[in-house]
Amino acid sequence: MNGAENLLNTLVDAGVEVCFANPGTSEMQLVSAIGNSASMRAVLCLFEGVVSGAADGYGRMADKPALTLLHLGSGFANSMANQHNAKRAHVPLLNMVGDHATYHLQYDAPLTSNVKAYCELASHWVGVSDSADNLAAVGAAAVQAALRGNGQIASFIAPANHAWEPASISAPTLPLPAVRKVDDAAIERAASALSSGAPAALFLGGRALRAEALTLAGRIAQTCGARIICETFPSRLQRGSGRVSVERLPYFAEQAMDALKECRQLITVGAKAPVSFSLTPARPSWLVPEECTVTSLAAVEEDLLDALTRLAEKLGANKNAATLEPAADMAAPNGLLTPAAIGQSINRLLPNDAIVSDEAATCGLGIFACTEHAAAHDWLTLTGGAIGQGLPLALGAAIACPQRKVIALQADGGGMYTLQALWSMVREQTDVTVVIMNNNSYAILNIELARVGAGQPTAKTLSMLSLANPKLNWVEIAQGMGMSAKRANSAQEFDELFAAAMRHKGPQLIEAMVVQQMPS
Amino acid sequence: MNGAENLLNTLVDAGVEVCFANPGTSEMQLVSAIGNSASMRAVLCLFEGVVSGAADGYGRMADKPALTLLHLGSGFANSMANQHNAKRAHVPLLNMVGDHATYHLQYDAPLTSNVKAYCELASHWVGVSDSADNLAAVGAAAVQAALRGNGQIASFIAPANHAWEPASISAPTLPLPAVRKVDDAAIERAASALSSGAPAALFLGGRALRAEALTLAGRIAQTCGARIICETFPSRLQRGSGRVSVERLPYFAEQAMDALKECRQLITVGAKAPVSFSLTPARPSWLVPEECTVTSLAAVEEDLLDALTRLAEKLGANKNAATLEPAADMAAPNGLLTPAAIGQSINRLLPNDAIVSDEAATCGLGIFACTEHAAAHDWLTLTGGAIGQGLPLALGAAIACPQRKVIALQADGGGMYTLQALWSMVREQTDVTVVIMNNNSYAILNIELARVGAGQPTAKTLSMLSLANPKLNWVEIAQGMGMSAKRANSAQEFDELFAAAMRHKGPQLIEAMVVQQMPS
Repeated sequence: MNGAENLLNTLVDAGVEVCFANPGTSEMQLVSAIGNSASMRAVLCLFEGVVSGAADGYGRMADKPALTLLHLGSGFANSMANQHNAKRAHVPLLNMVGDHATYHLQYDAPLTSNVKAYCELASHWVGVSDSADNLAAVGAAAVQAALRGNGQIASFIAPANHAWEPASISAPTLPLPAVRKVDDAAIERAASALSSGAPAALFLGGRALRAEALTLAGRIAQTCGARIICETFPSRLQRGSGRVSVERLPYFAEQAMDALKECRQLITVGAKAPVSFSLTPARPSWLVPEECTVTSLAAVEEDLLDALTRLAEKLGANKNAATLEPAADMAAPNGLLTPAAIGQSINRLLPNDAIVSDEAATCGLGIFACTEHAAAHDWLTLTGGAIGQGLPLALGAAIACPQRKVIALQADGGGMYTLQALWSMVREQTDVTVVIMNNNSYAILNIELARVGAGQPTAKTLSMLSLANPKLNWVEIAQGMGMSAKRANSAQEFDELFAAAMRHKGPQLIEAMVVQQMPS
Repeated sequence: MNGAENLLNTLVDAGVEVCFANPGTSEMQLVSAIGNSASMRAVLCLFEGVVSGAADGYGRMADKPALTLLHLGSGFANSMANQHNAKRAHVPLLNMVGDHATYHLQYDAPLTSNVKAYCELASHWVGVSDSADNLAAVGAAAVQAALRGNGQIASFIAPANHAWEPASISAPTLPLPAVRKVDDAAIERAASALSSGAPAALFLGGRALRAEALTLAGRIAQTCGARIICETFPSRLQRGSGRVSVERLPYFAEQAMDALKECRQLITVGAKAPVSFSLTPARPSWLVPEECTVTSLAAVEEDLLDALTRLAEKLGANKNAATLEPAADMAAPNGLLTPAAIGQSINRLLPNDAIVSDEAATCGLGIFACTEHAAAHDWLTLTGGAIGQGLPLALGAAIACPQRKVIALQADGGGMYTLQALWSMVREQTDVTVVIMNNNSYAILNIELARVGAGQPTAKTLSMLSLANPKLNWVEIAQGMGMSAKRANSAQEFDELFAAAMRHKGPQLIEAMVVQQMPS
């Protein structure tokens, strides 16, 4: 047995089942070991940003890590933007990064780089094997690290010779790390803040946005007359008809401040107090009113369900019912293909237990607002703001949950970053319906440009934010990667195509030629 | 005037003319300043790997830096693989990286990252402004740094508030850094090695592969009976009919060792002594025979033309003529569409002074071997081994040299990494003919797999190196990005399409369905 095979045995024993891979020359033994393993599914991706984004989507849905296979520093670099998003999503993610043979590094061959330094920039934990025998042990430690604190980025480096040299010491899996529970004082403080009589809100993120935790939050809110607000970009929000109603904090700073202006007690659960996403001149970073007290019940890496359970008990909130979302209006949209029309179609047609990967940017906020009464579903968002997440995330979510319909709501600008994900969706015959919002524009940048006070833009300035020259044809692009694709020009066309997509299993793309009204 | 406008003035004064841009929310003032400048061409790219690869191609051809515009750490990360290639190509490259306003960083907003740490991983020089007034001075220092030692990666960070706050102190451009000349002892040592009577070779890289330097090398070689060998992956090799004949060191270690086995004196000029690209079990890293003495005439960052001039004088080689490549055979190929057939078409049809961006991987080596007698041209290769360079490099070269025909020879696997470059080629109406080598495979990995002794591969192992499920249709993909595209299934079809492409100006793509014989 060589080091690679020994490592694979350990990873499989630890429950790792899927590898998103983009291998290079130095990872051939790892590829071979995966190829020989019946227990590790291999999903080839044609770019590393797809690998990491898919591993993020898998981690959000499976609550355990997918393995990635990446080629040296440059391969890891290509994966880093979506590693950033995954880090901000607090998911378990296990990176396996190949490197040259240890004794080849001194020669500084063309691809040589400081792989460890690349990994350290994006990871919570980094390990490097010091021998073929040690490789499996490093892998076991990495799995454990990936599961720490509800999920972390753990990366380990596999030098080529440690993969190909013989290994004789098998490495046992390590115990699942315990998730820290908050102390009683934190419960007391939160209970007291909620009982103060001042206008209060629970501000939720991380696993506090899962249905069970939300039910508790709903009971607490009902008992104390508090609001429930969630982060602007939740990792995974369980919502829809029959679920607890949650306000989502708006994206634009002034709207977020307006949403919070009456609040005097903000109790954070799995989230930090909200700050402006990106700053524009003369606007503040901190969005919470000065008069509002912020109290942390639990941080994102702590046991949020336990904290909410104990807080509900403390407040005697267990008997109160939470306010639940009603069922959706089933009317089909008509007329212009606006984000609201798309939302209306999704609202009425989304199958139960679907998963939505939302990187629809400016369109996504409108669609979200129109889909709160859709059948119960999971909504995944762009947690770290690094665009190019949506399609890979949908791929990974579909691999994690093969029985559930996945919808990728994707803006055209971000979609172009990691469009290679379409190919892997077809390769794996995942049940993903991709909806491209084609507005021929980085629409968010046009909005930001107007907001920063840079003066009247020239035609040249606007051309730097435009995708209209040449126009992208997503139907052709998707077909070029083997994916069935159609275009919708009106709300009715979209509704028909989306209805058909919900009825049929398998990868497909709808190019929605959206008409968008820009906020002023 | 704000900091961004002040900076732009300085960059324009310093001779920077082109910006490859993929901006985000924090760079709106920089976008606006570029949009208001008549002297800075703005080339929008739909992914940052295209930005950096294009800046590399521009730098190789223009010998001065293009500016990039990148969005925070994640934007820089997406550019890093091609920054790695640019670093290995020793080109001047100037990265302008946006960041949050300095006083917003403390809030750790979703996109916040350690931008400086990202830049340091990939750059020779990194600067950060400490005020709006200082931003232009940092820009001036960055231009100077980018031009040091024949070309370096210089990155500077522009915090959003330094771009939007008023600036009143203009920053003068800094003097062009002098390129170091080698001392007389280096000339003496090289002359003595070449005169020893033992079998000798000049081993050339960097700017020693430009026509003028090669003419000197050719005279020296002729005088001393030495061979001329170039790096396996030269940054920019001027070759073809009428140019000095150069042997290219083979890619595979055993072939490279075979090529060097008679050599007893290796004189390096702008290159390090060759090492194996990627190591396989039981093969060596160091490719030079043990009995061979390696003597450095000049390092890549030194004045190579001066060193070769002085060496030629020392050896009295100025009168000797170099061996030049004869003109090409003009026969058109027939039959199967092999790399050799493609080479034969290029050999006969390449217009004078064309530029070839070669990331054709396994196909490229064959094409290279068949095009040595084509009309004089520049051949650019994958210097750092991080795939996804070829299409962006061609884009950048075409922007630098609008009067010259550019050919991108692109393997399908690497092409998928940065296919967004096709869109920018159309946007800018560059004169690039893209030839995609569609073999539905990471062919090089199949070769490496066979070489590493990983045993008989399973179907699952092979599927991890295959692009055949689903098959890519590059004609549709290109058309989806607005590019005119056609497919060639035979040598004759390719020859006809390539001939037409050479006659017509503008962006176009030929999908070559190549038949490849794998080396055993």
